Amino acid sequence: MPAVIVERFIPVNLPELFVSRLRDQLGAAYVLDATPALALYAADALGIGSPPDLVVIPASTTAIAQVARLCHEHRVPLVVRGAGTGYTGGAVPTRGGVVLSMERLNRIVEIDEVNLLAVVEPHVITADLQRAVEAVGLFYPPDPASLETSSLGGNVAECAGGPRAFKYGTTKRYVLALEAVLPTGEIVRTGSKAVKNVVGYDLTQLLVGSEGTLAIITRITLRLIPKPPARATLCASFSGVKAAVDAVTALLERRVVPAAIELIDADSLRAAEAYAGRSVAAGDALLIVECDGTPAAVEEEIGRVEAACRNAGAVEVTRAASDAERDDLWAVRRQVSLALRATGLLKINHDVVVPRGRVPQLFAVVDELRREFNIKIASFGHAGDGNMHVNLMIDRHSEDERVRAKAAERVLFERVVALEGSISGEHGIGFAKAPYLGIELSPEVIALMQRVKAAFDPHGILNPAKIFPPGRATDPS
Amino acid sequence: MPAVIVERFIPVNLPELFVSRLRDQLGAAYVLDATPALALYAADALGIGSPPDLVVIPASTTAIAQVARLCHEHRVPLVVRGAGTGYTGGAVPTRGGVVLSMERLNRIVEIDEVNLLAVVEPHVITADLQRAVEAVGLFYPPDPASLETSSLGGNVAECAGGPRAFKYGTTKRYVLALEAVLPTGEIVRTGSKAVKNVVGYDLTQLLVGSEGTLAIITRITLRLIPKPPARATLCASFSGVKAAVDAVTALLERRVVPAAIELIDADSLRAAEAYAGRSVAAGDALLIVECDGTPAAVEEEIGRVEAACRNAGAVEVTRAASDAERDDLWAVRRQVSLALRATGLLKINHDVVVPRGRVPQLFAVVDELRREFNIKIASFGHAGDGNMHVNLMIDRHSEDERVRAKAAERVLFERVVALEGSISGEHGIGFAKAPYLGIELSPEVIALMQRVKAAFDPHGILNPAKIFPPGRATDPS
Repeated sequence: MPAVIVERFIPVNLPELFVSRLRDQLGAAYVLDATPALALYAADALGIGSPPDLVVIPASTTAIAQVARLCHEHRVPLVVRGAGTGYTGGAVPTRGGVVLSMERLNRIVEIDEVNLLAVVEPHVITADLQRAVEAVGLFYPPDPASLETSSLGGNVAECAGGPRAFKYGTTKRYVLALEAVLPTGEIVRTGSKAVKNVVGYDLTQLLVGSEGTLAIITRITLRLIPKPPARATLCASFSGVKAAVDAVTALLERRVVPAAIELIDADSLRAAEAYAGRSVAAGDALLIVECDGTPAAVEEEIGRVEAACRNAGAVEVTRAASDAERDDLWAVRRQVSLALRATGLLKINHDVVVPRGRVPQLFAVVDELRREFNIKIASFGHAGDGNMHVNLMIDRHSEDERVRAKAAERVLFERVVALEGSISGEHGIGFAKAPYLGIELSPEVIALMQRVKAAFDPHGILNPAKIFPPGRATDPS
Repeated sequence: MPAVIVERFIPVNLPELFVSRLRDQLGAAYVLDATPALALYAADALGIGSPPDLVVIPASTTAIAQVARLCHEHRVPLVVRGAGTGYTGGAVPTRGGVVLSMERLNRIVEIDEVNLLAVVEPHVITADLQRAVEAVGLFYPPDPASLETSSLGGNVAECAGGPRAFKYGTTKRYVLALEAVLPTGEIVRTGSKAVKNVVGYDLTQLLVGSEGTLAIITRITLRLIPKPPARATLCASFSGVKAAVDAVTALLERRVVPAAIELIDADSLRAAEAYAGRSVAAGDALLIVECDGTPAAVEEEIGRVEAACRNAGAVEVTRAASDAERDDLWAVRRQVSLALRATGLLKINHDVVVPRGRVPQLFAVVDELRREFNIKIASFGHAGDGNMHVNLMIDRHSEDERVRAKAAERVLFERVVALEGSISGEHGIGFAKAPYLGIELSPEVIALMQRVKAAFDPHGILNPAKIFPPGRATDPS
């Protein structure tokens, strides 16, 4: 984790009565105000933020409702924090106030094999649930690269994706029901354990991806599916990113539906190799494709994938021969982000997304940016979904490079939107991308979203200064 | 279509200025006020409603925005109508005002084979889009029984399901982006052509299933998938519904994932046979199971389905040997609803849903209701999803039966909710089920939904008296 830039946007002085009531309700041990403890809650994976004035660590929905009511009553900013693995500062205070850590709500409540669902508290780590359900032949597909460290509550708040979203969709497709605490303190339950539900508005889907700004998610009911009985993983290297992208296009044209189509460009590949201390691929771009399903279907599909890759000019195509080889391959992919950080450059991470077939145009945009702004860019990600992690790699000591990167980032967003894409496919807006919201959304849509925000949070206490552009955020009133 | 019960809930006198401005803007030919024309817009498939004071038939989003602005300005109720195939009165005025018919917005704007999506106007008939995309090797899965007559706009407004929802999910899974007109007259665009998008709140998913109460959907961008290359359909008859339900449970336990698992009980089967004029199945309950995917996967899966059905005691198992046989089988299933109406009894149609594995308990509830209320009940539907159409079959001339049915319907909803299910899996609430909303949703959730409604529609002009229980509906103010 890089050094936190500690910057208090607007100081808040917490009323003494407020603090003493919190201590009474939660117990003094779960209300932290010592500076070293607070510093632990000052940043997420973005590495920028300011410490809260207070951290509370409640153990139940009821206790969370009490915290919300107190914050609402005293108009104190309240920021919910899961595992702190987000990339846009979504779980980080920008102006002090209270951070509510979910760390004690960490139980898998139920894995229901008859109804194919799981009920979890928000702080269950994603991979832990996956292992638990796979042990009984079930499957929870969403697989963000952070799956060993991120929590399901955070996954739901951000609508996490991952490689398998290509076939299986993102987190939202699996959330059946939620228990949540409104910023005004009421406990609400949305959705049900039934897989279809059209009773009133779909508040469940509205809460998924709302980045902790509408309600505090306290319990999650997830749909599970049968675990695919077989899978096969293939790694194809290409002379360059253009050939690899052509192979992706060919896969889409052949209407193959693998579980995942991942792309790693040359800079990302070299960083990953340096990080892993070994050579990973011969060429200058790598595709990882995984198929799953019945054994016969997998065999047929992976054959079509291999043929398409060879046709598109793959330098080398290798199938993982064992689970260990497969895990190795995915470890390389999951560590690309860490590997890029380990280069010592400042990695400004974007997760833009274009319509499925427009990845070639997206890479053309990346080339333009390299030329126009003279900056290094390393890209990797979910090519099958049109969702690439485009990382501006900046010398952290060069003010000039920072300025150019800032300019390039705006142009990247503008050109992605011109391609009918979106400025974020996975990481959300937080405060890092809030200034750019207007590139994608019209003033009418932003105003509508702010009215929806006010319907949940009339005083704007919950996760203020997130999502909405500065100057028109729904600030605490 | 049974006779419409014409009942004006609250009369509205439209200001003359309002009517003349509408005529100026749309052209007199597209503003109808003659009684015979109005009567055509007085009911949907529920058969209950009241005629509007005026029907407008705009041809563009801009014209729709003008209508909305005028209605907003004059506080006139505005009800959007698609193909009028809904079962809960969602597209029907309850107190006069204006019906806005979408019938002129009926173009498939684009089928985009590169990006795997379609852009349509709301009045495209569902099956027409399906045929158009299948002609180029693509697939739009949602398949409500009404697919030859219902429109995609209506499907989106109600979040239509259908048999294939078991494997492919309901309409919401396919809606990427919407253009919509707010009741205040602004035109908004939500979502994008990218398959992942986490920029701000998911207003797209909030509009799906909102039953025409939040905004007027004017253009829809739908995600498409590759058409499965093979499919196989099987029909298994059982001595009774219990054995058929046991077979469904066995399929879920074996973790088979067919495209559809449909169940038809004895009363529904006999009605379907009478309607079709031929014998359909030997037993007293019928399962229709369809598998799709690669040829090898389909062959393997349908084999497992057949084995499970025989194991569970199927009287007869037949695979459709040709497309014609398959179409025949599905025609029987799709006509069950019509066949039940053709019995001459009044069919009070419910679409309750329970968690996947609780269909046996749902049928136990149906048996209890038969005994406790002494009424006929015919059930059929999406057993794999736990979503059954439970039809109370009433002598329309017996006031006593009507009263008993009314009492039974409330008990049905209560027991379904006690099973952690939902009172509607497909048809929505409209005004028909509005009095029962509180059985499933808490007062806090209903109040929250009403605040969301107000964020879109401050004066409550759009589709008033729908979804929310009478007495606390967001009425025009």
